[in-house]
Amino acid sequence: MSAAPLTVVIVGGVAGGMSAATRLRRLDESAHIVVFERGPEVSYANCGLPYYVGGVIQDREALLLQTPESLHRRFRLDVRVRHEVVHIDTDRRVVEVEGPDGQRMLQPYDRLVLATGARPRRDEPDAGPPVRSLRTVDDADAIHAAARPGLPVVVVGGGYTGLEAVENLVARGAAVTLVQRGPQLLSPLDPEMVAPLAEELRVRGVDVRLGVEITASAPGAVTLSDGTVVAAEFVVDASGVVPEVGLARDAGIRIGETGGIAVDDACRTSAPDVFAVGDGVEKSDLVGGGPALITMAGLANRHGRMVADLIAGRVEAASPAVGAGIVGVFGLALAKTGWSERQLHAAGREFYAVHVHPGSHAGYYPGAETLSMKLLADPASDRILGAQVVGRDGVDKRIDVIATAMQAGVTAAGLARLELAYAPQFGSAKDPVNMLGYVAENTRTGTTPTVQWHGLDDAVRAGAVLIDVRSPAEHVAGAIPGALNVPLDELRDRLDELPAGPLVVHCQVGLRGHIATRLLRQHGRDVRNLDGGYRTWRDGTVR
Amino acid sequence: MSAAPLTVVIVGGVAGGMSAATRLRRLDESAHIVVFERGPEVSYANCGLPYYVGGVIQDREALLLQTPESLHRRFRLDVRVRHEVVHIDTDRRVVEVEGPDGQRMLQPYDRLVLATGARPRRDEPDAGPPVRSLRTVDDADAIHAAARPGLPVVVVGGGYTGLEAVENLVARGAAVTLVQRGPQLLSPLDPEMVAPLAEELRVRGVDVRLGVEITASAPGAVTLSDGTVVAAEFVVDASGVVPEVGLARDAGIRIGETGGIAVDDACRTSAPDVFAVGDGVEKSDLVGGGPALITMAGLANRHGRMVADLIAGRVEAASPAVGAGIVGVFGLALAKTGWSERQLHAAGREFYAVHVHPGSHAGYYPGAETLSMKLLADPASDRILGAQVVGRDGVDKRIDVIATAMQAGVTAAGLARLELAYAPQFGSAKDPVNMLGYVAENTRTGTTPTVQWHGLDDAVRAGAVLIDVRSPAEHVAGAIPGALNVPLDELRDRLDELPAGPLVVHCQVGLRGHIATRLLRQHGRDVRNLDGGYRTWRDGTVR
Repeated sequence: MSAAPLTVVIVGGVAGGMSAATRLRRLDESAHIVVFERGPEVSYANCGLPYYVGGVIQDREALLLQTPESLHRRFRLDVRVRHEVVHIDTDRRVVEVEGPDGQRMLQPYDRLVLATGARPRRDEPDAGPPVRSLRTVDDADAIHAAARPGLPVVVVGGGYTGLEAVENLVARGAAVTLVQRGPQLLSPLDPEMVAPLAEELRVRGVDVRLGVEITASAPGAVTLSDGTVVAAEFVVDASGVVPEVGLARDAGIRIGETGGIAVDDACRTSAPDVFAVGDGVEKSDLVGGGPALITMAGLANRHGRMVADLIAGRVEAASPAVGAGIVGVFGLALAKTGWSERQLHAAGREFYAVHVHPGSHAGYYPGAETLSMKLLADPASDRILGAQVVGRDGVDKRIDVIATAMQAGVTAAGLARLELAYAPQFGSAKDPVNMLGYVAENTRTGTTPTVQWHGLDDAVRAGAVLIDVRSPAEHVAGAIPGALNVPLDELRDRLDELPAGPLVVHCQVGLRGHIATRLLRQHGRDVRNLDGGYRTWRDGTVR
Repeated sequence: MSAAPLTVVIVGGVAGGMSAATRLRRLDESAHIVVFERGPEVSYANCGLPYYVGGVIQDREALLLQTPESLHRRFRLDVRVRHEVVHIDTDRRVVEVEGPDGQRMLQPYDRLVLATGARPRRDEPDAGPPVRSLRTVDDADAIHAAARPGLPVVVVGGGYTGLEAVENLVARGAAVTLVQRGPQLLSPLDPEMVAPLAEELRVRGVDVRLGVEITASAPGAVTLSDGTVVAAEFVVDASGVVPEVGLARDAGIRIGETGGIAVDDACRTSAPDVFAVGDGVEKSDLVGGGPALITMAGLANRHGRMVADLIAGRVEAASPAVGAGIVGVFGLALAKTGWSERQLHAAGREFYAVHVHPGSHAGYYPGAETLSMKLLADPASDRILGAQVVGRDGVDKRIDVIATAMQAGVTAAGLARLELAYAPQFGSAKDPVNMLGYVAENTRTGTTPTVQWHGLDDAVRAGAVLIDVRSPAEHVAGAIPGALNVPLDELRDRLDELPAGPLVVHCQVGLRGHIATRLLRQHGRDVRNLDGGYRTWRDGTVR
């Protein structure tokens, strides 16, 4: 660093780019650090934009974490907003930049960091209502200004951002229709896990349309692919993003098969001394092993910081990503890490699944909420492949513990042995994460064989009789068609009443069913437990 | 299991004992399982007792999770309350039991599980006010009945249970004096971490007396070792517990040097086919390597279950314990895992410490609370040796993530690379746990050398000048005596003003101090950052 000062050019001034710039200054006081940002702001709170729309964040200034001026004062960064890099010459090591006045200039670099992010997947809007994404402060301003009680709004896309947009538009009194191309909301999770979300949205008055997309639009309305017409004076497009790679591609930098900029585990691109980080870049996927597009702010920040370390001469490498994510909607939290059952199934991977529904803390302490948890693991190695947690309390804690365990190589059964901090308002002496581990171990070792909710029909067709071991009151309140009710505590005395042949037992959440399965197996019966009980089955089959 | 049925005798019917009994039944339908419990109840919610006293748990029945009858119905357990095992003959494999009528009987066993727990350390009460521990339903009933507005109560012991007792007695309107023998409350944590607790207790009207103990008592009052007399119509003794090992010792079973029953990693005692679990037993300590007394309900349950697996012929071993614990007091949560700085220091272990004070979630989203976090790690291996987290939101999540990382062998710097689920109401794109890892890495690698709060006086005596890089307004609102105020953003322009010789810089929480330290080091200065900033220093030095 005492050699000639480096000139480091960073393209993109939000999460990854700005993390690189500030960390580099802390490591290298002498470097010339230039940040070009196409938009009017740098370092804004993009994950906060929906909450500004909804009025949760009332002060617009709170979104603007830094300005070019504050970054110069503290870090001597040369930050230029409304400056678009239009060309990179990797041979001559120079970028061509177009400023706000349309003038172009050349900026040489010793190291170049591309943090160009992603852009909305949609095409340009047509003649219908105004269409906005929710990715920039300008977008948030436009939606914020348009929102008013009764305004008919269509939100396209039921992923993380779309759901946050829905919640916040409802908070402003808008009449929201949520249009989702796929058959379920929040597709990173499996269908039985998102059932409470669809229910909650309906309760809040959101018109949820699944399996459709907009095919035409006119002022005040859009037409969906099922032929219905929906009133819309505004459309929020949250249908997804694609990596912004035009600049890199034009420069001859290699683009991966996922469509993101290809990088090695030190975020190096195919061009010498050109790094890339953030939503425009492929990540190494812990579960899949190969590259994947995982667009998370945390990864962008971490990789930006890592690139600064590399430029400053340190040896660093990125860990593979698990794609941990969470969204809060109307008090419900939905979170995941790793792959879903759908992904594993599509990739032909071997896996086993378990579902549990424990309380968020000790049942005898007031205020516990029921969690829905799902774990996916490799039957051979017992390696954790994915997890999903849904509920109203303690969801973020459980997904972070499992994500940490997964990254550290803890097995599914190892979750049972994790020692976690316990007091009755925070958890249980057997924490929900421990319970998930216990059930995983019982499942994988065959101690209690299980049937998944989507396998029940096949099991019945193959001759299995379904036994509901809940109380008669629970049975009457809602049961799986065809199930015989024999309460668990009567089971030993009523073994003779059970029909011959294979059985599937179930209770409400799987725990009594496990006890019943163990009991019946020791009495020589061919029996499996319905994993996750009536609750998982109901969540998986509700339409 | 198809051989002759086993007779398994379990001594103690609460956490560990009952976990063993119910798991064993699930694995072995034929075993004869007898549980002897000295007290009148089994399987009660001992961690809920303080909250019953305080009226948080209003229904006394909620504490009684199971009864002998319910356990017989579901698990065919032979549970005998008010039955005290008075002798074990490990040669003849028989226990002698005294029933409620004083009659004695002999009960043979094939396997014996000792889950005798711990008992209060105190001697018998003398002529003063009634003294009760808070370990049984009977204790809780007595304190619940006595509590009334204005009742003068002395709580002895400022650990987990004592603090819960204080909170709940205050909720009932009692006038509470908390007497703690040691110099600080909650001794599993370090003094600078518990400062907010002492402050909170004072705000709530609790009279906190540190460094004293009760030396005499008379009706209506107790005398403390500093000579003061404190009104007390009731004393709650939470001064600690000792393992209940009389029965084991009399039977010739080996007691470890910690005073708990010695067991191997499969919870086997020195006597054949005699297992022991729970608070009466030594645990293997992950940090220390040797045995330790760690009395946590989670470990008791887990080890009870494990012993059932072993008895049923499975191969299992216990993981070393980290002693993860948490307590909630008046909305403040205080949590730890592993060893404290005090323990490491006393044991002569090499370690380094870092403190951070991040928000519990993104600052731009309303409602974030400042966390105080401390990490202790091995400077050679970077292995995590301990962590402490204190605050009003998100404490339980962070301690569980760190405890999981610690058990899985993640290093301190590895915390920076953990990918956690982020949305602005749940965390930050750089989560507090990540921040702790970044600061650890900067500290351990010497990127930013630090001074601990308790090392500041020595640094100043050695000639260091203290520079406060906060704003003038922050400086005026409260500063470390002798510090020169040079705001961070002016530092580059005012280098000439800084005195020659070694410097210590500080800000409010350590982040700006880190930036200043990096800047000054690159300008050739001998400079260290005050770890955790003004806040940690103030918390460590406040009296």
